Amino acid sequence: MASLRFDGRVVIVTGAGGGLGRTYALEYAKRGAKVVVNDLGGDAHGTAASTSMADKVVAEIKKAGGEAVANYDSVEFGDKIVQTAINNYGRVDVVVNNAGILRDVSFGNMTDLDWDLIATVHLKGAYSVTKAAWPYFRKQKYGRVISTASNSGVYGSFGQANYSTAKAGLIGFAKTLALEGQKYNIFSNALIPTAGSRLTETILPSEIVAALKPEYVMPLVIFLTHESCTENGQIYEAGAEWFGTVEFYRSAGKIIENATPEKVRDNWAQITDMKNARNFKPGEIMEYMMTIMSEKESKKENTSSGSGASSGLESAAIFQEIGKGLKEDQTAAKNIKAIVVYNITKNKEEVTKFVLDLKNAPFSVYEGEVKNGEKANTTVTVEDTDFAAIARGELNPQKAFMSGKLKVKGNIMLLQKLTAVMEKQKKAKL
Amino acid sequence: MASLRFDGRVVIVTGAGGGLGRTYALEYAKRGAKVVVNDLGGDAHGTAASTSMADKVVAEIKKAGGEAVANYDSVEFGDKIVQTAINNYGRVDVVVNNAGILRDVSFGNMTDLDWDLIATVHLKGAYSVTKAAWPYFRKQKYGRVISTASNSGVYGSFGQANYSTAKAGLIGFAKTLALEGQKYNIFSNALIPTAGSRLTETILPSEIVAALKPEYVMPLVIFLTHESCTENGQIYEAGAEWFGTVEFYRSAGKIIENATPEKVRDNWAQITDMKNARNFKPGEIMEYMMTIMSEKESKKENTSSGSGASSGLESAAIFQEIGKGLKEDQTAAKNIKAIVVYNITKNKEEVTKFVLDLKNAPFSVYEGEVKNGEKANTTVTVEDTDFAAIARGELNPQKAFMSGKLKVKGNIMLLQKLTAVMEKQKKAKL
Repeated sequence: MASLRFDGRVVIVTGAGGGLGRTYALEYAKRGAKVVVNDLGGDAHGTAASTSMADKVVAEIKKAGGEAVANYDSVEFGDKIVQTAINNYGRVDVVVNNAGILRDVSFGNMTDLDWDLIATVHLKGAYSVTKAAWPYFRKQKYGRVISTASNSGVYGSFGQANYSTAKAGLIGFAKTLALEGQKYNIFSNALIPTAGSRLTETILPSEIVAALKPEYVMPLVIFLTHESCTENGQIYEAGAEWFGTVEFYRSAGKIIENATPEKVRDNWAQITDMKNARNFKPGEIMEYMMTIMSEKESKKENTSSGSGASSGLESAAIFQEIGKGLKEDQTAAKNIKAIVVYNITKNKEEVTKFVLDLKNAPFSVYEGEVKNGEKANTTVTVEDTDFAAIARGELNPQKAFMSGKLKVKGNIMLLQKLTAVMEKQKKAKL
Repeated sequence: MASLRFDGRVVIVTGAGGGLGRTYALEYAKRGAKVVVNDLGGDAHGTAASTSMADKVVAEIKKAGGEAVANYDSVEFGDKIVQTAINNYGRVDVVVNNAGILRDVSFGNMTDLDWDLIATVHLKGAYSVTKAAWPYFRKQKYGRVISTASNSGVYGSFGQANYSTAKAGLIGFAKTLALEGQKYNIFSNALIPTAGSRLTETILPSEIVAALKPEYVMPLVIFLTHESCTENGQIYEAGAEWFGTVEFYRSAGKIIENATPEKVRDNWAQITDMKNARNFKPGEIMEYMMTIMSEKESKKENTSSGSGASSGLESAAIFQEIGKGLKEDQTAAKNIKAIVVYNITKNKEEVTKFVLDLKNAPFSVYEGEVKNGEKANTTVTVEDTDFAAIARGELNPQKAFMSGKLKVKGNIMLLQKLTAVMEKQKKAKL
């Protein structure tokens, strides 16, 4: 496969005067990118500054025939760093939030300054640089952002309450930008490098630290920020020639009705059992909570209710009505843009399915499976009698949901929109 | 089992004027705790303030026969909040970092003020209150801290770049405090509540939000902060009567020698494969990197070297010498406080084991398995000839490690300490 080129791309690497940042900058330039080499030139503690570090890297890039420009601003002033890209190259495509300092000290001895400096450089810095690049990303419908997290944030780290907080924070930052950027082709990921950190330097033999070369992290950063890479909102790790990924896993947990602290204690083994743990996608959590809630409610229902069997399906007639309505007026449902499947049950056993297709014009309703290889955006499971009661306005759909009479899989918001449309239609007819 | 009482304990709950905080405060008081009900009385956006919210909750607690005092300071000024506890009750045992505000806005429209306010209240606030309580915790060798994270931080959340960053940050915060507090019986955990958040309020039907009661989160907080609970550095989740835990899982990943961005791309499926993913404990990550590195190096060795078989064990004589040395002088090794096991191999096959017990006085060395149900703190696997070469000073132990000749499982720091001791002994003898 083709090599990963960055011709025509403009890349900002913060803290690129040395270590990882320098390694990234050199490689981007080698691959055709124009690079903004940002470095305040300060020491690892965030004090002092000089222009020489960034200048040296720029000289190194130019000597090798690459294009680069130095910037000496603190990452707090991201607009100035992005302005350097715009003034020199007219655009910005990639932001690598790499600049960082350390103020290691035990929590008991930490000063407000130790806390504030770390928060400012790592968090406000990443915010500020990315924020200044964002309008350009959006306008050109292209952008790649790397935010540098750390195992210090993932596992905690003695003497680094400030740093581990900031580094964990950047995981949340990367994930939210991923959600907001997705539709503009702006992809954002978090990186956990194991290289040249103060952590490894202080507790590992120097030869091992030497083996944790920045060159072993660089390939991941280059790949993640290439236009061919569509990963978004993830956490990746690299170091010592090892590459991997990190995700949040969630235990299957336990539902405890009328929970008390004592019940929580007594069910602790099940609450924390990671045997069936799994990762979730954004948005899925809510769906999961829904499932839990409706399972819970339906359990309650089962013991109290027992709807009588009625012959024939009331819902069939209602879907026929809906179909007629759709033929008369396609506009009312035009904002739904989705397919809803209704599993109709009798005495909790599924008897048939109706598909409400408000995605493919002309909108239609039909019995059976979803056609044309399409998929349901929302699947509703409901008793025939309950569905009829809802349609007649005798049963509030939200109450039906809460009591487990209406089970929803997929996008629940859709159902709310749909209810609103139906309400409007109903009112229009009256 | 006994109910979880808090008699004699002093609990600070920040943002306790309403919602989750109020629910916690009421329950702590019911269970015998003296409660500092902190609330600025501001609105959800961090503007305006009044004393009425905290006062109402205090009145409610007192009416029910409990003990509580109001505090109206911003969590930025944690020392004032802790001072309220000290002035009124003379101690502080539990800090529940619950106060929070929202400034939801899309990243493109986010202002520096939106960013700063969230960082100040959630991050600096949790830091400030916990920091002020820390000296009391340490002195009394007891403390419990809850830091409120959010699924917004775990999965990202549209329009909450500021909030999700802060909430993810508190996970790192909780984990580092756990490491630093452990030996003082100060336990710190992160909480993910699903209740009353702006997120759920805006996108879920009001009846569902109502069902996500603070009362469903409270039992977890009470249990986690009780003296009987020894959980530390974990992330727990509660909402809608569901209780669970969240952990970082790490893919098995892939070692890529001489990695390039193209090789990373071409091995992407393996790098991100979560099939054999697992969670790690703090410190374990380094061990894991070690294993990776030594595996890698030993692979290289296998193809290049092939040490000849020598009859007898050189290491046996050396361990005999070490044993003699220990009998003569027990003081040199007194700071090691650990058991090291040496797996001695010949042509990569294990032939015997030597146990160096520098934990149980009198210190000793013996062949075979570790005695008295003790466990090795560090296990070293090394060829007989290499061990001899190290002992003779012909092979540097760090180089041996780097080249895969010395494999270490467990605490590698120990081995460094040990080497230092041995070096000193050697010099003393010369």
